[in-house]
Amino acid sequence: MPPSDYPPQPHFNLTFPSPYVAQVEISRPEKLNAFTEPMVHSLGAIFTQLSTDPSIRAIVLTGAGPRAFTAGLDVQSASESGPLSQTNRDEPLDTARKAALLRRHVLQFQDSVSALERCEKPVIAALHGISYGIALDITTCCDVRYCSSDVRFAVKEVDIGLAADVGTLTRLPKANVPMSWIKEVSLTAREFGAEEALRVGLVSGVFGTREEAVEGALALARKIAEKSPVAVQATKEVLNFSRDHSVQDGLNYVAAYNMSMVQSTDVKDAMLAGLTKKKPTFAKL
Amino acid sequence: MPPSDYPPQPHFNLTFPSPYVAQVEISRPEKLNAFTEPMVHSLGAIFTQLSTDPSIRAIVLTGAGPRAFTAGLDVQSASESGPLSQTNRDEPLDTARKAALLRRHVLQFQDSVSALERCEKPVIAALHGISYGIALDITTCCDVRYCSSDVRFAVKEVDIGLAADVGTLTRLPKANVPMSWIKEVSLTAREFGAEEALRVGLVSGVFGTREEAVEGALALARKIAEKSPVAVQATKEVLNFSRDHSVQDGLNYVAAYNMSMVQSTDVKDAMLAGLTKKKPTFAKL
Amino acid sequence: MPPSDYPPQPHFNLTFPSPYVAQVEISRPEKLNAFTEPMVHSLGAIFTQLSTDPSIRAIVLTGAGPRAFTAGLDVQSASESGPLSQTNRDEPLDTARKAALLRRHVLQFQDSVSALERCEKPVIAALHGISYGIALDITTCCDVRYCSSDVRFAVKEVDIGLAADVGTLTRLPKANVPMSWIKEVSLTAREFGAEEALRVGLVSGVFGTREEAVEGALALARKIAEKSPVAVQATKEVLNFSRDHSVQDGLNYVAAYNMSMVQSTDVKDAMLAGLTKKKPTFAKL
Amino acid sequence: MPPSDYPPQPHFNLTFPSPYVAQVEISRPEKLNAFTEPMVHSLGAIFTQLSTDPSIRAIVLTGAGPRAFTAGLDVQSASESGPLSQTNRDEPLDTARKAALLRRHVLQFQDSVSALERCEKPVIAALHGISYGIALDITTCCDVRYCSSDVRFAVKEVDIGLAADVGTLTRLPKANVPMSWIKEVSLTAREFGAEEALRVGLVSGVFGTREEAVEGALALARKIAEKSPVAVQATKEVLNFSRDHSVQDGLNYVAAYNMSMVQSTDVKDAMLAGLTKKKPTFAKL
Amino acid sequence: MPPSDYPPQPHFNLTFPSPYVAQVEISRPEKLNAFTEPMVHSLGAIFTQLSTDPSIRAIVLTGAGPRAFTAGLDVQSASESGPLSQTNRDEPLDTARKAALLRRHVLQFQDSVSALERCEKPVIAALHGISYGIALDITTCCDVRYCSSDVRFAVKEVDIGLAADVGTLTRLPKANVPMSWIKEVSLTAREFGAEEALRVGLVSGVFGTREEAVEGALALARKIAEKSPVAVQATKEVLNFSRDHSVQDGLNYVAAYNMSMVQSTDVKDAMLAGLTKKKPTFAKL
Amino acid sequence: MPPSDYPPQPHFNLTFPSPYVAQVEISRPEKLNAFTEPMVHSLGAIFTQLSTDPSIRAIVLTGAGPRAFTAGLDVQSASESGPLSQTNRDEPLDTARKAALLRRHVLQFQDSVSALERCEKPVIAALHGISYGIALDITTCCDVRYCSSDVRFAVKEVDIGLAADVGTLTRLPKANVPMSWIKEVSLTAREFGAEEALRVGLVSGVFGTREEAVEGALALARKIAEKSPVAVQATKEVLNFSRDHSVQDGLNYVAAYNMSMVQSTDVKDAMLAGLTKKKPTFAKL
Repeated sequence: MPPSDYPPQPHFNLTFPSPYVAQVEISRPEKLNAFTEPMVHSLGAIFTQLSTDPSIRAIVLTGAGPRAFTAGLDVQSASESGPLSQTNRDEPLDTARKAALLRRHVLQFQDSVSALERCEKPVIAALHGISYGIALDITTCCDVRYCSSDVRFAVKEVDIGLAADVGTLTRLPKANVPMSWIKEVSLTAREFGAEEALRVGLVSGVFGTREEAVEGALALARKIAEKSPVAVQATKEVLNFSRDHSVQDGLNYVAAYNMSMVQSTDVKDAMLAGLTKKKPTFAKL
Repeated sequence: MPPSDYPPQPHFNLTFPSPYVAQVEISRPEKLNAFTEPMVHSLGAIFTQLSTDPSIRAIVLTGAGPRAFTAGLDVQSASESGPLSQTNRDEPLDTARKAALLRRHVLQFQDSVSALERCEKPVIAALHGISYGIALDITTCCDVRYCSSDVRFAVKEVDIGLAADVGTLTRLPKANVPMSWIKEVSLTAREFGAEEALRVGLVSGVFGTREEAVEGALALARKIAEKSPVAVQATKEVLNFSRDHSVQDGLNYVAAYNMSMVQSTDVKDAMLAGLTKKKPTFAKL
Repeated sequence: MPPSDYPPQPHFNLTFPSPYVAQVEISRPEKLNAFTEPMVHSLGAIFTQLSTDPSIRAIVLTGAGPRAFTAGLDVQSASESGPLSQTNRDEPLDTARKAALLRRHVLQFQDSVSALERCEKPVIAALHGISYGIALDITTCCDVRYCSSDVRFAVKEVDIGLAADVGTLTRLPKANVPMSWIKEVSLTAREFGAEEALRVGLVSGVFGTREEAVEGALALARKIAEKSPVAVQATKEVLNFSRDHSVQDGLNYVAAYNMSMVQSTDVKDAMLAGLTKKKPTFAKL
Repeated sequence: MPPSDYPPQPHFNLTFPSPYVAQVEISRPEKLNAFTEPMVHSLGAIFTQLSTDPSIRAIVLTGAGPRAFTAGLDVQSASESGPLSQTNRDEPLDTARKAALLRRHVLQFQDSVSALERCEKPVIAALHGISYGIALDITTCCDVRYCSSDVRFAVKEVDIGLAADVGTLTRLPKANVPMSWIKEVSLTAREFGAEEALRVGLVSGVFGTREEAVEGALALARKIAEKSPVAVQATKEVLNFSRDHSVQDGLNYVAAYNMSMVQSTDVKDAMLAGLTKKKPTFAKL
Repeated sequence: MPPSDYPPQPHFNLTFPSPYVAQVEISRPEKLNAFTEPMVHSLGAIFTQLSTDPSIRAIVLTGAGPRAFTAGLDVQSASESGPLSQTNRDEPLDTARKAALLRRHVLQFQDSVSALERCEKPVIAALHGISYGIALDITTCCDVRYCSSDVRFAVKEVDIGLAADVGTLTRLPKANVPMSWIKEVSLTAREFGAEEALRVGLVSGVFGTREEAVEGALALARKIAEKSPVAVQATKEVLNFSRDHSVQDGLNYVAAYNMSMVQSTDVKDAMLAGLTKKKPTFAKL
Repeated sequence: MPPSDYPPQPHFNLTFPSPYVAQVEISRPEKLNAFTEPMVHSLGAIFTQLSTDPSIRAIVLTGAGPRAFTAGLDVQSASESGPLSQTNRDEPLDTARKAALLRRHVLQFQDSVSALERCEKPVIAALHGISYGIALDITTCCDVRYCSSDVRFAVKEVDIGLAADVGTLTRLPKANVPMSWIKEVSLTAREFGAEEALRVGLVSGVFGTREEAVEGALALARKIAEKSPVAVQATKEVLNFSRDHSVQDGLNYVAAYNMSMVQSTDVKDAMLAGLTKKKPTFAKL
């Protein structure tokens, strides 16, 4: 798995800082890592490929530059192209046709963002500085969220005149953070910082600086990468499934899933390693 | 929308303290704002009307008097009339007929309480003092819960011999507060205060006094009232829908919902306001 | 209900420390209360019987000995018998047949664990010391979790090479503790202690020592046992149902459930007791 | 329950042809019983009142005049008033505000139609002649559908340029008629007759003439009215609940519902009647 | 698997007419095979054991005697014992306690009936003669329903004064038979015969006599018993799961289920048999 | 939209026999149109492109040659490559890794098949001759199924030793055909013909010959293509959504969907056309 196998994507750096660990860095620091629409699809493409790359067992998502994880959607870019700009149309569309095109467009947009959630390998976000709008759409798809103490979050949608949700509003209630707080920050677009995010459970770790947060996320990724990939990927799958289903459905699903997984040689290897206190080695997945 | 358009409801004060902001005050302080059954239906009627009043963009719910938000259902009143008092019946009912009448009655009762959740405009509760029983049935329907430091909550149902739920037991698990704590307070009817409510996330803000809590809620309402009503109402709708559905269903729903909402002129106005740093003005909804 | 009516179960002590209160103690301290598979089914059998015993209104679950609530599954025992050890088979099984047997086996295992959740009476867990693996499978089925300050939790599955979930991964997301934290501890199998468990809401009370945690749980059980058993059992049932369904389904279910429950004499007795400030006495259930 | 207790509703005849049986007749034959919007809400109001009238145990829905059950929505009336006609507005609305008003409007419209499904008493439709558009929105809410041999059904929405569903598209897949056939008639708006409707199961009885269909429906209503109203209403409720939930949820719901219903004196009376071959008499509900 | 391994159950004959095929016969012909409550639990016990017996691959359920599959619940027996007869109680129960006992009782009753649905092996019912009440509760749990031309079905519950559902009302809407017809027969308790049952799809085969229906069912069982038991049991599981879930959930579940099943040697054997036109032999399951 | 815009796909003919109508023909007649795995993905790619092609309003799916719509998966091809053939692997995989690869593979396979269901334009299948295995996986994704009188269907999975479902078992119960019949044909793999398929509702039209069936499907497609594409696509979307959700969810979804769709100019045009009896012309979508 040399990095060269991944087609380069503008505005993203893909590196492999440790065995089995990938780091995806949003890299458009001159624009505070603001996302254009092609960047969203690039991000989805990267995670779709990482998802089934047997050389990868955990992924860290970071933002380049000292000031922002991402400032959100690039409003200027969005107003110039995209489904709402009709400069290149010969004839105006009626409301329904415009609506149908918008829906297709939103579904594609959502689909690229959801690629982070569908990714079979755990994804850890290390947020810092300005983390507005799409920062939450993207990182509510991540499995674990860490941040530095200078982080400034905001659910910005209400300030651009719509609930143009590509995931934040749908996934925040499923992150098991208090609904009263979710409503408060979603309806006001007010900023909130690291301490508040930790208190309500949106992030599960706060670090001093951006560098420490990234290192914290990488350390977690390395730790996960040491575990059986069979166990790790099944754990992610079952937790995500259970979030959306009843307990009984969750139990049935994990029972079906484990019919094969329990037959893994990793079980024997892990048990043996536990008894002998040696670090086990697991085959790729 | 002069207040006179709202039929007066005994035991409720409806005022309009700021543009686009309504305040509903439970006002039966001599009985600690205890609810009779007609009061529940009055409350539902007020919120049903506010829901589609284009002059209203946010609503604050408060209790009059220094001692209580509400002490709960008026037990004396409940025992004298209502479905269980059979004084005006010629013939006794068998268990099944009594049950069928009770069910119809409970469904109507629930429906009036649920009017606060169905209300298209955000509702912010400012709780203080005694806040027992129906205080939680009602405020778990609100979007945001604030309280003063002297608040005394209790889930009282278990103390009146039944799980006569008109919402608390159903909605607390959806408020994303820890289940172990929910079970503890629901099975004991023990009191808990402001600090504990904040720690578990039941409220998202604690203020020193009743007056400060009310002012805090009004300030939040004013802030929300400045936003695009298209965006605010869609945000509430999508968050409530997502709470009850899978992530995939939530994403599909918001995509359908936004087919029209994205076409709002508010989007352009809000974007422009963001670029020019001016406060936008939005049409009514 | 003399204790003698319960068939003795090896490695479990069943006592009745207060009226209407049962205490189930895992008692295999020489092995840190590690579970063999027969012990899991014994535990299920005890709770199935307690569930409908009219002399019982609340149950406390504890672990014997100073060092551990339970160290998890007895790995040695599991490797010697059970579905994965094929010593007593004449012919090897193909992957699919092995899988079908495994699924049956996991479903039975889950079913015994779920007996604690199905138990109609509230169950309070008092955890202490080592509380690994199955400690969480079992206690996420309990209604309330308390612990002592020396508790050491771990979601161990990922360390034995699989997501062999008999409940932890399915029920943690429904315990309303933050998902980012759940993923972190489930993907690393790292230990966490009492303070962290309280902060995220996994437990709702921390006590100094094992003895104090047990006494705290018993005090809670006694308090619950004083309430109307009609109200207590309905509260548990409705909260569990609501966890897995939409708000509208939850309201409909509680309306159907209460058609009969509201007709209880406990309602009159409890209301009267409330007015006269006397302690009510309730019939068995 | 003299008919005079029901406020007269223009274009509907409410009669009581047999004990416990009501007949609601759409009566605007000069317009082929086409529905204006106020008529839809009138229909909902009638069924809401019948739902809890203890003198009623079964309801028949028919259309007056020889030519049509109903020709559908009155297009002319719809184009002159309603949410899309903006004659009485000072300022034009943007797409999003128009959409929000439309949604409120559709939800109210749906709610009036759904009153037939929510009605606790069984509703039997006797269709004849032209039965277009809203004829199916309304009668897919009914419990049983009969028709005369001259009936001409059509799912007309696709011909008015939208899937303006107030129930047909949502409820047809739940009527357990083949999906391939549903798609065919919904996507073409083609007519189909009595024989085809019976073959696919949309109706469960075909009669020679309108009069025979009405008499067949009344005979069925009389038969239902002889049964225990406790049993009849519970049967309707459980069947409708089960349609929308898993088998396990359905079983749990009926178990909660019957906690009280089984205690009905009707059970003893019905059993006794069965043994003595006498016709039982049941109290009202 | 000699029959002697099955404890004899009064009123049931268990035979093994062909390799891998079991026949369960309800045998209380002097009472038209009416069910007492112990018989329901016996039936559940038989199917629970057959479910995991590797010597069984398909099961036929029949009724002894020429006159009835079963006449339903034995009303006399039900009135003498069971939860509603309180002869052996010292003190009367209030409505709520009676309700709680009834619910426990109904859940147990449902559970024994559901054993036929949970049975991992396909169950084919051959109905004849009187097939009332519980006949449908039981056979809507079966996978395939055949009948003889003299069959007389009735959903009898409405005639005993309640919707005492132990499955019919919950499962009929899931059998994909038209809802209008289901409501008609459920609300009237009217009889219907073989031709009507075939037309609506309740049965999928009609035979001249009881003997021919039984032989038809056995022939189908033999045919199923020749197939790979891995494939047969997975097919049943997936079809039942899909009935209760969305298409997307169904696809996910079958993908998890097949992770191991596809690895069966049966796949190779079956493919080879298909190419060589020889009859394959499959290992037990 | 000249056909040349579509990349040619081996073994498929894509033609445009009428305005707005596409015909996709499976064309590998020398192998009875058996599917290799690349063909499945080609089929998915074609429908993904057709889905958003504004020049297309309805699609017909047919099989080339006189003998078969498709004989199913090409078993020989499947055994030579694909996830189960491990010829190109250096090291053997353990059961769990094999399982994880199989699951990824099945999910991709399902995804390509589901492209027909996701296609926003209606798809009409015209089946003839041998229509085995994947014939049903694919056509249960179609909206309407027609067939010729010589069709021979079979759900073949059980004969290849597994329930390797890529859709048939999941979607048949949602096609609203009787479950008893579904179980019978799925558990035996027996053939069934046109008459039986029509009787149970699997197809909604039977034609004499292959040519007549294709012409019947094309005629239906032309009829659909004349309707408003706004209305047609919304109708398909709402019917598919409703199949998988409760009635209340379905109504909410259609209300959200129509917020924009009702604003279409097609509504005015269609209404006007209805009044003036002229054929309306609709803009592309």
